[in-house]
Amino acid sequence: MGETSKNVVVRTNISPMLSVRRGTEAVEFYKAAFGAEELFKIEDNGAVVAQLGVEGSDFWVADESPEHFNFSPETLGGATVRIVLVVEDPHKMFERALQAGAKTVWPVEDQPYGWRLGRVVDPYGHHWEIGKPLG
Amino acid sequence: MGETSKNVVVRTNISPMLSVRRGTEAVEFYKAAFGAEELFKIEDNGAVVAQLGVEGSDFWVADESPEHFNFSPETLGGATVRIVLVVEDPHKMFERALQAGAKTVWPVEDQPYGWRLGRVVDPYGHHWEIGKPLG
Repeated sequence: MGETSKNVVVRTNISPMLSVRRGTEAVEFYKAAFGAEELFKIEDNGAVVAQLGVEGSDFWVADESPEHFNFSPETLGGATVRIVLVVEDPHKMFERALQAGAKTVWPVEDQPYGWRLGRVVDPYGHHWEIGKPLG
Repeated sequence: MGETSKNVVVRTNISPMLSVRRGTEAVEFYKAAFGAEELFKIEDNGAVVAQLGVEGSDFWVADESPEHFNFSPETLGGATVRIVLVVEDPHKMFERALQAGAKTVWPVEDQPYGWRLGRVVDPYGHHWEIGKPLG
């Protein structure tokens, strides 16, 4: 443990921050698609930064700002990171995402590498692999 | 909890999977930069998929495959997701990343929004915000 300025001890954590267009709308999409809850949100001049939690794990969503090297998939024509969402019931979460407006890239199936896994692309161009390891 | 085929109960988890060029080299970079340990790795025809852990949190690294919508930042000319790495000692982790070959985007400083935070770009074009909330 290193020094702290205010005696705050934090747990090491790695979370993706997704750059999007239409950030405010995107936050609502992710809440619907994954049952995410809003842990934090600020809006400034129409640009949003939000932290969303899904059953104890978290990710961030922010409006793109190319001047700060934050590009949406719509701007670049593709995504450089996909998000692996591990859940107990991949079929159920996958269906929920589709209902909210995600599109199937490939459906949930038991894969030869030992995962039950499918992939969607969301309306903002981010790709999600939804699944779990099969023990 | 949903049904399981093999009585495996999984914890919900969100992890980024970074698309890169030179994946095998990238895995070694991330081990050096963040003290990551290899949790899983497969190599097939020179393409790697690896899961790396940093003090209990994890991320994935995989060679890009544009035919499967997985693009590296080098291919697209930017990144669509940045990675938020929360650690107890941001200065120490930031310095470690620089020593391994990352470049400073902006240094670790106490930000007006209550985080001690800095940002690096790694040799594969992915951006990392390294910091922690200040209570």
